Amino acid sequence: MARVNEHYLKLQAGYLFPEIARRTASFAVEQPEAALIRMGIGDVVKALPRVVVDAMKAAAEELAADETFQGYPPDLGQLRLRELIVEHEFGARGVDVAIDEVFVSDGAKCDSANIQEIFATDCVVALTDPVYPVYCDSNVMAGRTGAADADGRYAGFVYLPCVADSDFQPPLPQGHVDLIYLCSPNNPTGAVLTRSSLQEWVAYARSENAVIIFDAAYEAYITDPEVPHSIYEIDGAREVAIEMRSYSKSIGFTGVRCAFTVVPAQLQGTTVAGQTTDLRSLWARRHSTKFNGVSYPIQCAAQASYTPEGQAAQRQLVDFYMSNASIMRQRLIDGGYTVFGGTNAPYLWIATPEGHDSWSFFDLLMRQAHVVSTPGAGFGAAGEGYLRLSAFQHREAVEEAMDRIDRL
Amino acid sequence: MARVNEHYLKLQAGYLFPEIARRTASFAVEQPEAALIRMGIGDVVKALPRVVVDAMKAAAEELAADETFQGYPPDLGQLRLRELIVEHEFGARGVDVAIDEVFVSDGAKCDSANIQEIFATDCVVALTDPVYPVYCDSNVMAGRTGAADADGRYAGFVYLPCVADSDFQPPLPQGHVDLIYLCSPNNPTGAVLTRSSLQEWVAYARSENAVIIFDAAYEAYITDPEVPHSIYEIDGAREVAIEMRSYSKSIGFTGVRCAFTVVPAQLQGTTVAGQTTDLRSLWARRHSTKFNGVSYPIQCAAQASYTPEGQAAQRQLVDFYMSNASIMRQRLIDGGYTVFGGTNAPYLWIATPEGHDSWSFFDLLMRQAHVVSTPGAGFGAAGEGYLRLSAFQHREAVEEAMDRIDRL
Repeated sequence: MARVNEHYLKLQAGYLFPEIARRTASFAVEQPEAALIRMGIGDVVKALPRVVVDAMKAAAEELAADETFQGYPPDLGQLRLRELIVEHEFGARGVDVAIDEVFVSDGAKCDSANIQEIFATDCVVALTDPVYPVYCDSNVMAGRTGAADADGRYAGFVYLPCVADSDFQPPLPQGHVDLIYLCSPNNPTGAVLTRSSLQEWVAYARSENAVIIFDAAYEAYITDPEVPHSIYEIDGAREVAIEMRSYSKSIGFTGVRCAFTVVPAQLQGTTVAGQTTDLRSLWARRHSTKFNGVSYPIQCAAQASYTPEGQAAQRQLVDFYMSNASIMRQRLIDGGYTVFGGTNAPYLWIATPEGHDSWSFFDLLMRQAHVVSTPGAGFGAAGEGYLRLSAFQHREAVEEAMDRIDRL
Repeated sequence: MARVNEHYLKLQAGYLFPEIARRTASFAVEQPEAALIRMGIGDVVKALPRVVVDAMKAAAEELAADETFQGYPPDLGQLRLRELIVEHEFGARGVDVAIDEVFVSDGAKCDSANIQEIFATDCVVALTDPVYPVYCDSNVMAGRTGAADADGRYAGFVYLPCVADSDFQPPLPQGHVDLIYLCSPNNPTGAVLTRSSLQEWVAYARSENAVIIFDAAYEAYITDPEVPHSIYEIDGAREVAIEMRSYSKSIGFTGVRCAFTVVPAQLQGTTVAGQTTDLRSLWARRHSTKFNGVSYPIQCAAQASYTPEGQAAQRQLVDFYMSNASIMRQRLIDGGYTVFGGTNAPYLWIATPEGHDSWSFFDLLMRQAHVVSTPGAGFGAAGEGYLRLSAFQHREAVEEAMDRIDRL
C-alpha cells in the first residue's frame, strides 16, 4: 500500500469541534427531549444584512445571462473587493496596505491552516497555550513536531502559556523561534493584545528574524479604543507579520465563506543557502496553485458589507453579540464564577468550579443545564480548568442558558 | 529570517495560466484594438440554468432571516447534496458509493492539489506527460522531487509520455510507483481512457499497492457509450482509487466553486512500520482541519443541478460546447491541421505546423489571429509541438476564430 503521511497519526483524538459535535449528537440521541442551547462552537446565528443578501442575489442573477456571466474568479480576489479592504479595513485606521498584498480566500481557518506550507518544515513554531487548534494541528500534519505527551503537548513546539496571573498575555519565547501564531482578540480566552504587548512582539520578531502569523478574525469586537485592530498599526510590523481577517464573525459569513490575508511586500524569508525570497510571492504561488478563488456571488456580498448600510448593519450585529457577552459576564460573575474575556471579544473564558476539570464541567453543563460549551482543555494543556462560552446566540437563548446555569 | 519551503523555488516559471494571462494582458496593452478571442484557459462562458440560479438566490434569502439562517456548513458537505451525488453520479450508472465516502469541496483543482498531503513525502509519483500542471506543481511544492531539467522534467517523478502513436494512452510505469494521477477525459489532450485501459491501470495499482488519483472533472463530455464515466465502474477500483468530480464544466460553476471527491472506505495506506490506516479518515481529517466547507447558497445551487430541469440544462450546456468542439475539429482538419481530442472532451489538441514550437505558435495565433490558446509545452515536455484549444466559447466566437485561423 502507498505510504501515508504519518504525521497525521500523531494528532490527538479528533479535531476539537467534531469531537464536541459527536458528544452533543450522542447526548441528543440519549435525551431527545432536551432543548440544547449551543454556545460551544463560535458560530453566528443572526441573519445577514439585507444589502449583503441583495448583492449576493444580484450577482447570482448576473450568472443567469450569457452577457453578464462570470467564470473563474481572479486567483487572488476581485480587484474591487481588494480595493475596499485596503480602504476600509486599513486605510480608515491610517494603515498602509497595498492591493497586491491582499489575498481573498474562503476562510481565515483555511488561511491559518495553509500559511505554514510556505515555510520550511524545520521551522520552530511557537504557539500560545491555550490555542486555536488549527494552528497546532496544521503544523503537526506538516511534520513540524514529534509525538504528543500525556498532556497533549507536541515535542518541538514552543508553548507560551497564557495564564490568569498575567492577564492571558503570551510571554515572549525564551530563545529563538521562527514562526509565532498570535490571535487577538483571542480565541478562546477573549483576551486582547495591548499596543505595548504587540510592540514587544514586533521587536522580538525583528530581533529574531521570526514571522508573526497574526489572526485578527475577531477585530470587529474590540471596544477598547487603545487596542490595535491590525498588527500593522505597530511600527516595523510590515517586515515581520502576516495578518488574517474574516467576514465570518464581523458580518455573519460563517456559512458564506470569505476572508482575506495580508502578506506585506517587505516580508522576507530565507533559504538554507542564505538567499532571501519574498513571502508574498510564495503565498501567491500557493494560492494560485492550490486554491481557485472565492465564488463570485460571495465576493460581491463581501463587497456590499462596505456600503454605509452594510457597515451600519455590521456595527449592529457586533453590538448585539457584545451585549450578549456583557449579560453573560454579569450573570456568571453574579453566580460566583470567575470569568475572563467578553469585553473585547465574543468569548467568555470561565474558570471551572472546584472539583471539575474542563471536560467534566462540559459534560455537566450539557447534561444538567443542556448548554453546550467548549472545554478549555480542548485548546491546550493550559486551558485545563477553563470552559469557553460563545456569545453568538439569540438573546432569549442567552438568558435561558444563564437561568439554567444559575439553577445548577 | 524564517526559512522558506525551498521546494517552491524549484517550480518552473509561473503556473501556466497566470503566465498566459500575463502574455495576453501585455499584448492587449500593445494592441488595445485587437478583439481577442479567448480559447486558452478552459473557462465556461454560458449562463447558469435558471433552476440553479433560483436555488442560489432562495438560499441567499434564507440567510436574510434569523429563522432560516445557516452558519458553518457541515465540514464534509451537506447531507442532501451528498445523497444526490451518490444517487445521480454513481447509482444511476450502477456504481455503489456511500454517502460518507463523498467529500464536497470548493473545486477539483483544490482537491487534486491537496490530496497528496495525506501521503508520505517519499511516495513515488507517476504523472502523464503532458499533464494538468496542478498535479505536478503540488507535488513539487510538497518536496517529492528534485530540481527540474532543461525540459522542465523534475527529478523523482515517473513520467508517462502520452503520444499520438499510442492514441495518447498513458503507458503503465516500468517498475513501482505509489501514486498515479490519471485524468479522463484528459486535460489537455482530450483523449479518454478506455475500459480496457482502466482495467489495466486498476490491475497495475492492485499489484503494486499503488493509489490512483482519478480526475473525472470532464466526465459529462463523454459521448462514447463504451467509455467509463467513473473509475469505480472497474472491478477492484474501490481498493485503489480516489475519484474527483466537479460542477465547473458540467453545469458551468467555474465562477461558483463546487466539486467533490470520493475516497472509498476500502482504500488503505500504510506506515513505515506496516500499520494500515484508511485513507478516507486521513482525508476527512485534512478536510475538517484545513478547509471549512462550501458556502451554503453554493451547495444549494449544486443540489438544484440534480432536478430534472437542472439535468436537462446540463445536457444542453454540454451539447452546446461539444458542438463547438465538433465545428472546430472539422474546420481545423479542413484547414490542414492534425487534430486530436474534441470528441469525448471539450479540448482539441492540435499539432503545431512545421517550423513552430508550442509557444511560438501560441504567440502567432495571439498576434496574427488574435486567438488565445494554450501552448502544449506548458503541460509538459511531451506537450511540445502541440497547442490546446478550448471549446468553451460562444458560437460566433468559435466561428470567427476558425475564420481567422483559416486566413493565417
